Amino acid sequence: MSELSTATRVSVPTLKYYVREQLLHAGERTSPNQAQYDETHVERVRLVRALLEIGGLSVAQAAEVIAALENDTIPLSSTFGIAQRAVTQQGASRDADQGDAAARVAELCARRGWNVYPNNPGLAMAARVIDTYDALGVEVITDAVLDDYAEAADRVAAADLDAVSAARDEAHMTTVVVVGTVLGDALFAGLRRIAQEAESFRRFPLPNGAPAPHPTTATEQEC
Amino acid sequence: MSELSTATRVSVPTLKYYVREQLLHAGERTSPNQAQYDETHVERVRLVRALLEIGGLSVAQAAEVIAALENDTIPLSSTFGIAQRAVTQQGASRDADQGDAAARVAELCARRGWNVYPNNPGLAMAARVIDTYDALGVEVITDAVLDDYAEAADRVAAADLDAVSAARDEAHMTTVVVVGTVLGDALFAGLRRIAQEAESFRRFPLPNGAPAPHPTTATEQEC
Repeated sequence: MSELSTATRVSVPTLKYYVREQLLHAGERTSPNQAQYDETHVERVRLVRALLEIGGLSVAQAAEVIAALENDTIPLSSTFGIAQRAVTQQGASRDADQGDAAARVAELCARRGWNVYPNNPGLAMAARVIDTYDALGVEVITDAVLDDYAEAADRVAAADLDAVSAARDEAHMTTVVVVGTVLGDALFAGLRRIAQEAESFRRFPLPNGAPAPHPTTATEQEC
Repeated sequence: MSELSTATRVSVPTLKYYVREQLLHAGERTSPNQAQYDETHVERVRLVRALLEIGGLSVAQAAEVIAALENDTIPLSSTFGIAQRAVTQQGASRDADQGDAAARVAELCARRGWNVYPNNPGLAMAARVIDTYDALGVEVITDAVLDDYAEAADRVAAADLDAVSAARDEAHMTTVVVVGTVLGDALFAGLRRIAQEAESFRRFPLPNGAPAPHPTTATEQEC
């Protein structure tokens, strides 16, 4: 276990905690005080760190995702739902299953031809956000804005499924689904921040002739 | 304050906590035991709830965003950066400012014509996600996938700026920037979940002829 700790840069007490919480499968015991760990353990520890640190999942949520990953009888299309529900914030499915905002999301689904089960966590999540805008008195989420977001979501979903199809075998496809659900949100959020800043400099020049950022080139410093 | 509590459904101790933490401006004192609260307090409490509950911000992060909102001398294009840095997860800006992933993000910026300052938090956030995919041995984030995500991000950023321009006055524009940075991530993540499920049913039919979801109509139940 100390070698696993060195390979993953995760402390031995933390690794023991992962095993107790069923985030990590136990090593094969070779003596009362020794167990054998292999590459599957290293990969798993990296996945757990990604779920907890980048995905912001709780240990219980991560354990649920890991359990889905290990269950071979779950079809791939259902793995999406399990991963989605685990990473969707607590409370997102409260409050928002009725009312104007939910109706607007349903209409959006109809416009896009999106056929999904009513328990898709995105339905309540999107409705809750629209409700919150309205409650804040910021009524800027027009149908045109929703349609733009939805078209962008379709493009990202297609890319996500392309990535799943590119995985080298079925076990990796499931991993890509799980990892992609968590990491894809963060990847998109990162790119949205870059695109927002670039777009805001185009539309709202800095006052007093302050310089806009230098043109981007393919070097890190100037991006 | 008990009336403000009733109007916002937030308990009096929590409201007092918000005032202490500078999330909420104090009421105008009318007697030693009485203070007057108005509509600006109701709006502010709703904003604070949105930042904490939907945005997942810490109290300290929310206070930073609120301070930016109250500072009239900050130009609108800079408000984006402050809101973005506050809502970008801790740690996202560590580790990822060098290496292959950062170079790939810089190249992506060049391909898209994205001109931003090097401290845009999205740069490190996106690079860190790509690093994590690589560390997990899941090398599915090709340049084609990145380009699809980036094109979607451009569309969402344009919609975000449209929403800002639609705000009814300058004070509301700043609110839309702050609220939109936090809520827009959640709105997009919700729509991505719906689009993913719809797309996965198209590409990976359920085994054993299990029925796919019913076609969506504009009623909530069937979406």
